[in-house]
Amino acid sequence: MAIWLEQASQDFEQAFAAFLTTKREVSEDVNIIVRDIIDDVRNRGDEALAHYSLKFDGLDFTKTSMRVTAEEIDAAIAQVDPAVLDALKFAAARIEKHHARQMPKDDIYEDDIGVGLGSRWTAIEAVGLYVPGGTASYPSSVLMNAVPAKVAGVERVVMVVPANGGVINPAVLAAARIAGVEEIYRIGGAQAVAALAYGTQTIAPVAKIVGPGNAYVAAAKRHVFGTVGIDMIAGPSEVLVIADKNNNPEWLAADLLAQAEHDEGAQSILITDDAELGRAVEQAVERQLKLLSRSKTATASWRDFGAIILVDDLAKSVPLANRIAAEHLELAVDDPDALMAGIRNAGAIFVGRHTPEVIGDYVGGSNHVLPTARSARFSSGLSVLDFVKRTSILRLGPEQLRKLAPAAITLAHSEGLDAHARSVAIRLNLEG
Amino acid sequence: MAIWLEQASQDFEQAFAAFLTTKREVSEDVNIIVRDIIDDVRNRGDEALAHYSLKFDGLDFTKTSMRVTAEEIDAAIAQVDPAVLDALKFAAARIEKHHARQMPKDDIYEDDIGVGLGSRWTAIEAVGLYVPGGTASYPSSVLMNAVPAKVAGVERVVMVVPANGGVINPAVLAAARIAGVEEIYRIGGAQAVAALAYGTQTIAPVAKIVGPGNAYVAAAKRHVFGTVGIDMIAGPSEVLVIADKNNNPEWLAADLLAQAEHDEGAQSILITDDAELGRAVEQAVERQLKLLSRSKTATASWRDFGAIILVDDLAKSVPLANRIAAEHLELAVDDPDALMAGIRNAGAIFVGRHTPEVIGDYVGGSNHVLPTARSARFSSGLSVLDFVKRTSILRLGPEQLRKLAPAAITLAHSEGLDAHARSVAIRLNLEG
Repeated sequence: MAIWLEQASQDFEQAFAAFLTTKREVSEDVNIIVRDIIDDVRNRGDEALAHYSLKFDGLDFTKTSMRVTAEEIDAAIAQVDPAVLDALKFAAARIEKHHARQMPKDDIYEDDIGVGLGSRWTAIEAVGLYVPGGTASYPSSVLMNAVPAKVAGVERVVMVVPANGGVINPAVLAAARIAGVEEIYRIGGAQAVAALAYGTQTIAPVAKIVGPGNAYVAAAKRHVFGTVGIDMIAGPSEVLVIADKNNNPEWLAADLLAQAEHDEGAQSILITDDAELGRAVEQAVERQLKLLSRSKTATASWRDFGAIILVDDLAKSVPLANRIAAEHLELAVDDPDALMAGIRNAGAIFVGRHTPEVIGDYVGGSNHVLPTARSARFSSGLSVLDFVKRTSILRLGPEQLRKLAPAAITLAHSEGLDAHARSVAIRLNLEG
Repeated sequence: MAIWLEQASQDFEQAFAAFLTTKREVSEDVNIIVRDIIDDVRNRGDEALAHYSLKFDGLDFTKTSMRVTAEEIDAAIAQVDPAVLDALKFAAARIEKHHARQMPKDDIYEDDIGVGLGSRWTAIEAVGLYVPGGTASYPSSVLMNAVPAKVAGVERVVMVVPANGGVINPAVLAAARIAGVEEIYRIGGAQAVAALAYGTQTIAPVAKIVGPGNAYVAAAKRHVFGTVGIDMIAGPSEVLVIADKNNNPEWLAADLLAQAEHDEGAQSILITDDAELGRAVEQAVERQLKLLSRSKTATASWRDFGAIILVDDLAKSVPLANRIAAEHLELAVDDPDALMAGIRNAGAIFVGRHTPEVIGDYVGGSNHVLPTARSARFSSGLSVLDFVKRTSILRLGPEQLRKLAPAAITLAHSEGLDAHARSVAIRLNLEG
């Protein structure tokens, strides 16, 4: 029931261009509500947090503490299946090891005329991690956000998570403990974002906020951007599978459905040069859909946004893939390296038939926070780089200053900036 | 006339905290106007651009082409003082050399169980560079934005610059030529940002937009963020000078005024342990202010936002500097390295008495696009990294999949994502 696009057909370019611009999200305009909540938290601090937590989460901070205590975390961990705890630890260790390689190195050097130049990297001092409540409260996301922050050297990682009716997913608290996050508050929504950005009596402000959330959280993050840093605003997930004829259609169908089950706005796309495989995958999707606990979500996603694109030659899939700029790209072909060489826009590439995207969601070691909605054209997945910043360094002695001064003075004057020119000239007893 | 803060005084902490949160910008709410302009450009394309260019810039596109021709660029360059051209070329070469070192390296490796992991960097395909018109149309900014994009390997760098009454600063066109930018349109404001983000009949869309602009341009960039990438939203400039007693007050005054002349909202701060030096600098500022062509701007900036902070020990300037998180930090002290070791939040550090910040504005080689308004706590200056993006790569064979599968399946089930579990299990003939 997904759409079929065939490159051989005359209207392909038009149909593909339209397909690329399909909107998969209802954009709720919640800006006014969010602005009021943020202003209230800035003005009333903890009192406002108490108000909204009672209103939205049914949580009374005169009876429950806002901060989750170490004992509560201990108690939550005791409830988690030991196999899940082991799997989380296994995942965390792999994520840590991979991300440690991403730590950028300082580069301090002298150029040929003795000017000292440099880039020095330091960790952001404090970072807030938003974790959604309810069914989207994923422990794997806690690891994917918190572990790189810790690897970067962020001293204070603060987690906020709404506790609807008082309940926090115990596995989320376990993941926080495994990642070394101990400062956790049971607050959510725009009010939690405001508390992280501006601080309250209980919560010291942070310098950057990361993590997924609903429309209110996304709007609040956009709103506080500038006061603090934010990560990308994630949209619904997507996968693009490029497959030749030598594939088991059931495997590919399973991969398409692993994306589709996330969200009704998720998108699963298959590009193949084999019409028969395309039809077989489509039939396998229909069969497997019935087996899923999240069948309703996956059915809607596949029906509304799923696509099978038939090309006459797999090499032609590369420019299409670059235009789609998928969050996840699977290369289920005999020679994935040949295709990969031409791929430029993709959040992550899963190479070969034995690399289902789901491995990257959990235990591959790479990050699962990736650019959605074609933003892989200009942005990257979450990494250690998101938790550090660079200070540039310049160092001149009198000799270097003499060499660089004339050009600087000339340019300053040409831009009408006399005081700029003077600040250089005065050191050389020149006329500015 | 700047304020004095003394660390020894009892109310210092309170006064310093208030100083940190002083707003230096009038935030105009131009969102509704900007949204209408963007919608109009999306709907009517070139026709809308012609409409706004006639309305705002007095420019008639039935008489002048929207695109600046190569001949016009040649003619502009012929008007520029050869000394300025030479200085621009000298600056461009130094910027290019420094930025070439920032190009990140791919990291593709196999881990201890044979899982292939990697980060691969590619350039963004097309980038738009906004250049303001009028007095803020700086050729140095063209170099600082365009050269790193070219170093990164961006194939298409498009410049937009409003031509009020048809006039574009010839030095801006010369800088574009030197940086290798040949696709230039004489459009500006929110309409130019919309054209870059969505494309028109004449202008193909880009994937990222960088460069400074007024409130309308800033609002438009925020608005199109997500459809395209944007750089930071820059605020008024600032400098923090930390100085011991062994300084020529005239030099320091010149440095403070080089910032102040930029904008009435610019901020110049001196921290010293020597009250006498502080007073001497203050007097030198008053004297030099009278000599400046931009005296009015610099006087307002120094009066409203200038500050001299007296500490009893220079070591105590370090935590203050980290809280201020200045865009530019000058260390005019005997032992700058001792202070520098503790500095964490700063856009750029200018080390020693012979490194006036202005050298970094033009010819140091480092970038002059730096985080303002305390955002050095969480962000970095412009670099080659802003023009590339990273694709992560994961590659498993059957053996690696067998090793990673159990933990992935466990976590998928624990998160209620059956289709995720199935996509792994089906490859091992396991039950998902």
